[in-house]
Amino acid sequence: MNETLERLKEKLALISDLKNAAAVLSWDQETYMPPKGAQARARQLATLSKLAHEFFTSDEIGELLDRLEPQVCDLPYDSFEASLVRVTKRDYEKARKVPTELVEELARATSLGTEAWKQARAESKFSLFQPHLEKILDLTIQKAEALGYEDHIYDALLDLFEPEMRTAHVKRILDDLRGKLVPIVQTIREAPPPDDSFLKREFDEGKQWDFGLRVIKDFGYDFEAGRQDRSAHPFTTSFSVHDVRITTRIQRDYLPTGLFGTLHECGHALYDQGIDPQLERTPLASGASLGVHESQSRLWENLVGRSCPFWEHYYPRLQETFPAQLRDVDLERFYRAVNKVEPSLIRVEADEVTYNLHIMLRFELELQLVERKLPVGDLPEVWNAKMKEYLGVEPPNDALGVLQDIHWSGGAIGYFTTYTLGNLLSAQLFASARRDIPNVIEQIRSGRFQELLEWMREKIHRHGRKFTPMELIQRATGRELEAESYLEYIREKYSEIYGDLP
Amino acid sequence: MNETLERLKEKLALISDLKNAAAVLSWDQETYMPPKGAQARARQLATLSKLAHEFFTSDEIGELLDRLEPQVCDLPYDSFEASLVRVTKRDYEKARKVPTELVEELARATSLGTEAWKQARAESKFSLFQPHLEKILDLTIQKAEALGYEDHIYDALLDLFEPEMRTAHVKRILDDLRGKLVPIVQTIREAPPPDDSFLKREFDEGKQWDFGLRVIKDFGYDFEAGRQDRSAHPFTTSFSVHDVRITTRIQRDYLPTGLFGTLHECGHALYDQGIDPQLERTPLASGASLGVHESQSRLWENLVGRSCPFWEHYYPRLQETFPAQLRDVDLERFYRAVNKVEPSLIRVEADEVTYNLHIMLRFELELQLVERKLPVGDLPEVWNAKMKEYLGVEPPNDALGVLQDIHWSGGAIGYFTTYTLGNLLSAQLFASARRDIPNVIEQIRSGRFQELLEWMREKIHRHGRKFTPMELIQRATGRELEAESYLEYIREKYSEIYGDLP
Repeated sequence: MNETLERLKEKLALISDLKNAAAVLSWDQETYMPPKGAQARARQLATLSKLAHEFFTSDEIGELLDRLEPQVCDLPYDSFEASLVRVTKRDYEKARKVPTELVEELARATSLGTEAWKQARAESKFSLFQPHLEKILDLTIQKAEALGYEDHIYDALLDLFEPEMRTAHVKRILDDLRGKLVPIVQTIREAPPPDDSFLKREFDEGKQWDFGLRVIKDFGYDFEAGRQDRSAHPFTTSFSVHDVRITTRIQRDYLPTGLFGTLHECGHALYDQGIDPQLERTPLASGASLGVHESQSRLWENLVGRSCPFWEHYYPRLQETFPAQLRDVDLERFYRAVNKVEPSLIRVEADEVTYNLHIMLRFELELQLVERKLPVGDLPEVWNAKMKEYLGVEPPNDALGVLQDIHWSGGAIGYFTTYTLGNLLSAQLFASARRDIPNVIEQIRSGRFQELLEWMREKIHRHGRKFTPMELIQRATGRELEAESYLEYIREKYSEIYGDLP
Repeated sequence: MNETLERLKEKLALISDLKNAAAVLSWDQETYMPPKGAQARARQLATLSKLAHEFFTSDEIGELLDRLEPQVCDLPYDSFEASLVRVTKRDYEKARKVPTELVEELARATSLGTEAWKQARAESKFSLFQPHLEKILDLTIQKAEALGYEDHIYDALLDLFEPEMRTAHVKRILDDLRGKLVPIVQTIREAPPPDDSFLKREFDEGKQWDFGLRVIKDFGYDFEAGRQDRSAHPFTTSFSVHDVRITTRIQRDYLPTGLFGTLHECGHALYDQGIDPQLERTPLASGASLGVHESQSRLWENLVGRSCPFWEHYYPRLQETFPAQLRDVDLERFYRAVNKVEPSLIRVEADEVTYNLHIMLRFELELQLVERKLPVGDLPEVWNAKMKEYLGVEPPNDALGVLQDIHWSGGAIGYFTTYTLGNLLSAQLFASARRDIPNVIEQIRSGRFQELLEWMREKIHRHGRKFTPMELIQRATGRELEAESYLEYIREKYSEIYGDLP
């Protein structure tokens, strides 16, 4: 086996290097690239993506996998060798279905699309982005058809981000959630809203930046193996287990954007920094799925970062950083403000309770787009109408509406749902961690996160992609993915702020 | 021909994309990469370099070139097609001689070597870098042997940076220069030195940064197609004609480092931004040679940026930027200070007159290294002894001595000589431009550089690598490369400052 395995690993390492190189190019595109560099960058990304796809879908990889499969079947399921062959085989079968030309065309279209989206967003003009999105949608539908599906074309796309999750299942979860969340939101709406006007004072950007870095250093983010930069839309990217970078967006006149954005991306980065280095340069060296990834970002942003114990520790430090802005605001007022529930325009700034309504909207629009029931040109109008229907607010322009997210410009259709799955899982994992670490809340209250991080490292991070999301959740929490922990968390937390909730 | 040519262009475009991707990764390594990212980055660069080399040295490229060669022989020498085939063929023959494994090993060794050099330089400890340099030297010698040579092994290395230049020829030029420069330096040493103590006052780094950017904007650097960042050693890199970046190093307590460093790198960048976009994604899309490239950086840094007319325009602006530091310094004192001739430790900070002595030292050490007459471990000692002999100064530590330059850590042995060739050529080109644009000095005196830049674009930049350095110089100036313009320039300029010179 050794020689065959080494040969496979060598091939996969080369492919991994190409993909990580592409990730560096994409990071640069979002952070530092001058505008005229976009066209050449699109070609470079297309070439790297094409080569990685060609190498990965070569007959040789298939033959190596076929030879290895019977040889690893006696090894433990979670051994490196068995996992590598199993997961690579699954990826290989998917990848063989998508023609190289289509992969290349998508890479080019999304690279140009991302530039167009930036421009369109800056000018708040959907029409600048529309032809790009049409092209991207066409190519994505072609890709879904090539991948194949049993029930719904959207299944093929969903499966790319959340292996083994089906459209019908997501619909059920979202319907269930909607049924239970709506009365909660209704009750909250009738309660007097907390005052959060002081969050809109002027906060020096450099000080915001430094405060965020200080918190994520306490969380355990390794700055020797990562860094934070600015970008239009915050993201986390990784070029190796030892180079995991985050970006943030800071608003001078709205404190939560930068602060919670940084905590959120740090959660993603902690996951990537925690993957077993043995998995480097193989398909196992990333998160189990986007939903599992999002559970980590949400956990550190919300379950930890918007909790009362967290702020008992950090609020005095924040007041020290911004004495003029926060001198007259006590801890309780601040805590209630950063947990204010209020229907709003921007998903990434939505509170924990209404957040999932933003996801439902996008999920429904995506379904209609891939079913060809909604022309791309009608998106702004339908978006605005749905915002009014679900959240009672209407975007005054495209930048605050349909253009707010980077995802579609990058071809990530089928992605949004994973945010809600991540929300549910974050609460489920945190409940389990609380059972295993009885004084974890006390630890958070004194700014100590090491045990919580180690729990996540042990249960989630280190495994990379060895397990499917469902396997991983079962192993970590002893249960299937469920919405109950999340609803309990919401009820417990928000009834303290807003009074009894249904 | 069309189909064969298109096939060749397609292959070359892919290779160019891989090389440009590698350039992005290298830029990131020098500017933003966190320290723990180095090992993975080395592997990624090795993979990109290996693939580019494999694709370029494939039999198919050779066959396409063989088929195209007779087809382009009737086309004008400087036509795109004839130039592409001719230059690619030359590169191909060279590249076929170096085994892929050696290319890959060199890429890995130099990537790790660059990290080690940074560390060694920070700690001023040559021993940290020594094993890396030994490895790099071994591999470089292997490469030179593989490339082959007629007279001297060093010819093979020199030819990589300065096509068609020979070791014996360089020796002659350097000997000739030495003979004429030494009496000049001697005379200058006996004259009273200008006072430049005010250049060592405290200059706010942000203001230095902004002032430099303002000047290079006036030069014509396109910030929509480039940017400046910080790095330990300033460099220029290019990922396309429309994405040409520079880096700089700023010292708070020494004004010239950042300012002239920025002008220097801008000169390189103007060359790369001026290449005909039609040449993109082909081997023609870069400078004719390192020497020609250096002529551009030296021209903007020295012939323009250290000239009296230049400072007549910019000095009042610099005084406005640093009123406290420069209020008591008049234009003449400032001009004399930035042109002070004084033997010093650091090459990149050396004046125009002594600069070439630094090059002679490196040239001689490199010769001994590749001839295996000098063990790497003896370098610091020999370096220091030669510095004392040639310049009368002795480095107090390795950081200010043998560790000052990044070049060897990147495998660039044979490179330094091109700096002196660039110096000579900068003066020769400027003399020609003065003949063609009679009022160019007046233009510089009023901060206008467009006509000078256009002259360089027309004569040098746009051609990329279509011509050999010698052909290009002949076309641009009507003469062979010669040292006389440079010596005249030095005599004219410095006799104004130091009195009559021999």
